[in-house]
Amino acid sequence: MTSLDRLLDSEPTVVAAGADLLAAAVEEQGATVYRVDWRPPVSGSAASLPTLAAAGKTFAANRLAVDRMLGVRPMLVDIGTAGECLPDMAERTFLHAGPPVEWADASGPLRGALIGAMLYEGLAESPEQAETLAARGDIELSPCHHHSAVGPMAGVISPSMPVAVVHDDAGDGVAYSTLNEGLGKVLRYGAFAPEVIDRLRWMDSVLGPVLGAVLRTRGPVDLQSLIAQALQMGDDGHNRNRAVTSLFLRQIGSALIDGVDSPSDQRRAVFDFIDGNDHFMLNLVMAAGKLGSDAASGVDASSLVTVMARNGTEFGIRLSGTGNRWFTAPAPRVEGLYLGGFSADDASPDIGDSTITETVGLGGFAMAAAPAIVGFVGGTATGAVRRTLQMYEITLAEHPAYQIPMLEFRGTPVGIDAGLVVRTGIQPQINTGIAGRIPGTGMVGAGLVEAPMEVFVDGIEALAEAVR
Amino acid sequence: MTSLDRLLDSEPTVVAAGADLLAAAVEEQGATVYRVDWRPPVSGSAASLPTLAAAGKTFAANRLAVDRMLGVRPMLVDIGTAGECLPDMAERTFLHAGPPVEWADASGPLRGALIGAMLYEGLAESPEQAETLAARGDIELSPCHHHSAVGPMAGVISPSMPVAVVHDDAGDGVAYSTLNEGLGKVLRYGAFAPEVIDRLRWMDSVLGPVLGAVLRTRGPVDLQSLIAQALQMGDDGHNRNRAVTSLFLRQIGSALIDGVDSPSDQRRAVFDFIDGNDHFMLNLVMAAGKLGSDAASGVDASSLVTVMARNGTEFGIRLSGTGNRWFTAPAPRVEGLYLGGFSADDASPDIGDSTITETVGLGGFAMAAAPAIVGFVGGTATGAVRRTLQMYEITLAEHPAYQIPMLEFRGTPVGIDAGLVVRTGIQPQINTGIAGRIPGTGMVGAGLVEAPMEVFVDGIEALAEAVR
Repeated sequence: MTSLDRLLDSEPTVVAAGADLLAAAVEEQGATVYRVDWRPPVSGSAASLPTLAAAGKTFAANRLAVDRMLGVRPMLVDIGTAGECLPDMAERTFLHAGPPVEWADASGPLRGALIGAMLYEGLAESPEQAETLAARGDIELSPCHHHSAVGPMAGVISPSMPVAVVHDDAGDGVAYSTLNEGLGKVLRYGAFAPEVIDRLRWMDSVLGPVLGAVLRTRGPVDLQSLIAQALQMGDDGHNRNRAVTSLFLRQIGSALIDGVDSPSDQRRAVFDFIDGNDHFMLNLVMAAGKLGSDAASGVDASSLVTVMARNGTEFGIRLSGTGNRWFTAPAPRVEGLYLGGFSADDASPDIGDSTITETVGLGGFAMAAAPAIVGFVGGTATGAVRRTLQMYEITLAEHPAYQIPMLEFRGTPVGIDAGLVVRTGIQPQINTGIAGRIPGTGMVGAGLVEAPMEVFVDGIEALAEAVR
Repeated sequence: MTSLDRLLDSEPTVVAAGADLLAAAVEEQGATVYRVDWRPPVSGSAASLPTLAAAGKTFAANRLAVDRMLGVRPMLVDIGTAGECLPDMAERTFLHAGPPVEWADASGPLRGALIGAMLYEGLAESPEQAETLAARGDIELSPCHHHSAVGPMAGVISPSMPVAVVHDDAGDGVAYSTLNEGLGKVLRYGAFAPEVIDRLRWMDSVLGPVLGAVLRTRGPVDLQSLIAQALQMGDDGHNRNRAVTSLFLRQIGSALIDGVDSPSDQRRAVFDFIDGNDHFMLNLVMAAGKLGSDAASGVDASSLVTVMARNGTEFGIRLSGTGNRWFTAPAPRVEGLYLGGFSADDASPDIGDSTITETVGLGGFAMAAAPAIVGFVGGTATGAVRRTLQMYEITLAEHPAYQIPMLEFRGTPVGIDAGLVVRTGIQPQINTGIAGRIPGTGMVGAGLVEAPMEVFVDGIEALAEAVR
């Protein structure tokens, strides 16, 4: 008896997807019908998915890539200077968030941050002069992601800036990030007023050296442990970092009291600066994410998303199996809550490397752990849970260390599979700050945005070509 | 046309409570039936409730009492010494948690803590001698609640101990609590080994003075603000106080670095001690609760529960409208998780003043804010939400400052109405630590327990007599 015979001889059970007409018709004839929520793959990907499936390598490749992403153990070991620490950081190199971009195409906040960084580096004496120099190519622009680094919002890193040095205790990776300046009128949101430059100078002359001394005295800070605890304290790791910042202050407080030689007013100022900024740890969470991202890169045939990043002009991703290639689309607009006096008209499109958090299972993917975040980015607590639950549909794993108490300690959804994104039509969910579109403005709000579908379609197509 | 005519002339709508038989019968005849989840009042209260209703004073009295409970603004202003600060603290007075009890009836952990406190005060040189002195009445026992104070677990306060001084910024109340020693082998869990006594001595010689100096330098700490923030960071205020302890360290860190004259090793030791104990703030949350409890006391005809407290032998409550009278029942057993090597056989019955947290809308009433607590006290995150939701059935208000993000920022259920407890049969939910029953053991676990129904029945009966 063939399996077809058995099918026809027994009571029919029908699984129906798509239009309801067939299901209803069969049901009327007394058959049991199971409706499944299936949709055809996103337009443009129909040819790529069967190619990948036929090659038969992607499943194992994704397993390997996501295991590498989850296998890093990020430790904050020191504070250095960008010019000295970052690989391939030539003189007059200015790093920025997102995929590559030239000055001519740069968004308002990126231009503002570059102007500020040139003033800070002493390359220009006025914003106008900085613009002229940048426009004629006196500085070189390069993405942070090409230099083992990440930066939130404009993400500008210039040679004199202090950077956090994050080592992988389970491998040999190193990742870097700037130190967080606070909210409001700050460089990463495109502001360049004198107060912004003064703060940057204090950060390189006091904050960086004191914090570096503390780390060398007390030893490395285990970032994964802090982030894991913070998710049980209402953080998401992207736009809510109050708990992890509190826990970090607990880690360094005792050395600031009686562990390093710096003058007590400087030690106190460092404590107060971090205490005054609940986003302080964002940059360190990002550097921890970059370690995982880099570890997962370069696995042949893997459709794992290793990078999502935006420069305010374009949104770009990279896949593990397509190496250093960027797939880009216009940066989307953010739905958000605006600070007093600002509205959507003042907003720049989506910007920043901080989507590295979503790439490693935090931020928009972990919002069920952080219901209070909706006061900052908008939406409801129920919606925050729904966002997280939906992300399990497009991810390859549940994070072994980052758990969500409200979901009975289920691990956060982690490891975005570009194949699952195009197959389900579900876009990665991101929460983010919003920068003013006019250079010099600073922060204007915060909100929610979805990664554009085109970049995943293009990525999968390129991957299919590579494995063909 | 009378209202009875209208009832008979129109389509019948039936509201059915209790047994389903009637509802089903009427429904069969085509009438619309609304089933309500009503149960008869708890046995013993049937006579009291109508009396209270007839007197007609309780509704307004409860409104007034709960408004007073919610109107306090607790500020931590200083650290003092019990003997100097607490009202009516005669020499050789030892305070304890819960309702009044004599040595002969004292539970194991209370005896252990009293022995430890006598060793600490130098009244005895050995545990045996302390027991002999206590048994022959050489010390006087008195509930903390009779002295504007509260203490967790055994709650023993002796004259030399440092106490936190909490002022009501919106009135003239003052409340006191001991400082938290940490978990494990500690006095409040009935341990009295030399390490316990040494720690108490360090607390009165270093912790108290340094913390007092910090508070006098930086000014008062706003406890309500810290607790409100902590509920948005996964604390419940009773058995999960990691967030509020972190926020407190942020409040005092800068003064510890560069604000007080104490030697730097002492300042560092104070920071490390608090950092090492995520329950540190429990005692201060309790003192804040005691302010609200005292403010709400003494409102004629009010059935608001102002105190729930246990001494390991009895569980006692007080109502606003029955003044200082205690209503007691045997202390219940706790359902819990046990520390390695211990089991339910080692557990003392329920003990401690820490149920002041539940009395003011925290702890078991706020568990929906603290899903991660189930790792400490048992149960599931879903169960934690269910517990909070049920408490709205027996409370008079939703806390204006203490909000639960996951319930879309709904205020915690606050102001237990003993009338609602007996009318619904719903017992107040408590989470709690568990002490070893043998004096000297210390902590053996943590878990969940319900306030015994008898005390509410007795309280309501006494209130009915008073208003009759």
